[in-house]
Amino acid sequence: MDILKERIISDGVAVGTEILKVDSFLNHQIDVKLFEQIGDEFRRRFSDIERSVDKILTVEASGIAVAAFTSRYFGYPPVVFAKKESVNTMDEDYYFSEVMSFTRRKLSSVRIAKKYLRAGERVLIIDDFLAHGQAALGLVNLVAQAEAEILGVGIVIEKEFQGGSRKLRKKGFRVESLAIVERIEDEQIVFKKDSEVGDIGNYSREGE
Amino acid sequence: MDILKERIISDGVAVGTEILKVDSFLNHQIDVKLFEQIGDEFRRRFSDIERSVDKILTVEASGIAVAAFTSRYFGYPPVVFAKKESVNTMDEDYYFSEVMSFTRRKLSSVRIAKKYLRAGERVLIIDDFLAHGQAALGLVNLVAQAEAEILGVGIVIEKEFQGGSRKLRKKGFRVESLAIVERIEDEQIVFKKDSEVGDIGNYSREGE
Repeated sequence: MDILKERIISDGVAVGTEILKVDSFLNHQIDVKLFEQIGDEFRRRFSDIERSVDKILTVEASGIAVAAFTSRYFGYPPVVFAKKESVNTMDEDYYFSEVMSFTRRKLSSVRIAKKYLRAGERVLIIDDFLAHGQAALGLVNLVAQAEAEILGVGIVIEKEFQGGSRKLRKKGFRVESLAIVERIEDEQIVFKKDSEVGDIGNYSREGE
Repeated sequence: MDILKERIISDGVAVGTEILKVDSFLNHQIDVKLFEQIGDEFRRRFSDIERSVDKILTVEASGIAVAAFTSRYFGYPPVVFAKKESVNTMDEDYYFSEVMSFTRRKLSSVRIAKKYLRAGERVLIIDDFLAHGQAALGLVNLVAQAEAEILGVGIVIEKEFQGGSRKLRKKGFRVESLAIVERIEDEQIVFKKDSEVGDIGNYSREGE
């Protein structure tokens, strides 16, 4: 998604070789028009399942707006966002999954109320970032507990070198990332070339 | 906003006399179409300042989608969401404000990066709930630190009996709440009658 990559280059800040800060338009300040374009691009990438999505699942906080704008382009399925605050993990009204944060070096948990994810529901997972994949795998785990079905995982920015998408694909999930960062080098952000993105599948990406 | 009140009656759950749970459509699962209608209603309520809003400010997590959909109807000003995670409150890149949560009985802090709120910017504060007003007053405090200007406060559901709007109006702020709960009684939700909402101001509410 060229407009997104251009924005990452112009407004993103690379820190060291691991961190990419995009809080000027994605996860602290939000460019709402860009979010609409992101939602529309997810529709294009997942056009084959556009009308099959029962629910869009994400995790608070910065996934919420991305998921909500994506819903508009998929016929308005409900968005459910997993919550991060710690509550009693024995609460039987919720599914829980542990998530290890590499950047913050701590273990936390995400949860969703059981009544908002039912067996057999077809789920599209949406998130702003995919790094080591811990948050996404936490959501995958919640969906498995609910015996719902994952149709795909849509990511705004993937840091490929941290391995999250590899883990997800190994488990058989389809991952669509709108911008794939291959590496961060001398504070330069290097994107994966679209021609190299073969293993993502050939989901009508002529527009790029 | 009748459609919102009807939804609160049909899907909201009153617990005791203080708590109203609306997580089936507002703050865990999200009804995106309703959020569009909420954004449009805020435009109607604040129609006199529709093109004057430089920035929409909210707080994570459930305020984010409300604020983002409101932005669409105000000419797409950037949305900034205050963050709740605890970081070093001495970090000079941020404004901090303490927030007392009555429901969780704990003190937390909210913060925004200084670069995303500048002196003189005209700010519309948007949030999903207004109860005791602590979160809103925290945001007001952040705006004051930045020497920005508050044009108004837009709230989806106000629990009037907890006094938040009274505190905000006492400080001179305009508050527009789309549904005002006067009291919760015997697990029944009692809304304030629109004819009694005189002190909110007469901002073109003919449609209601």
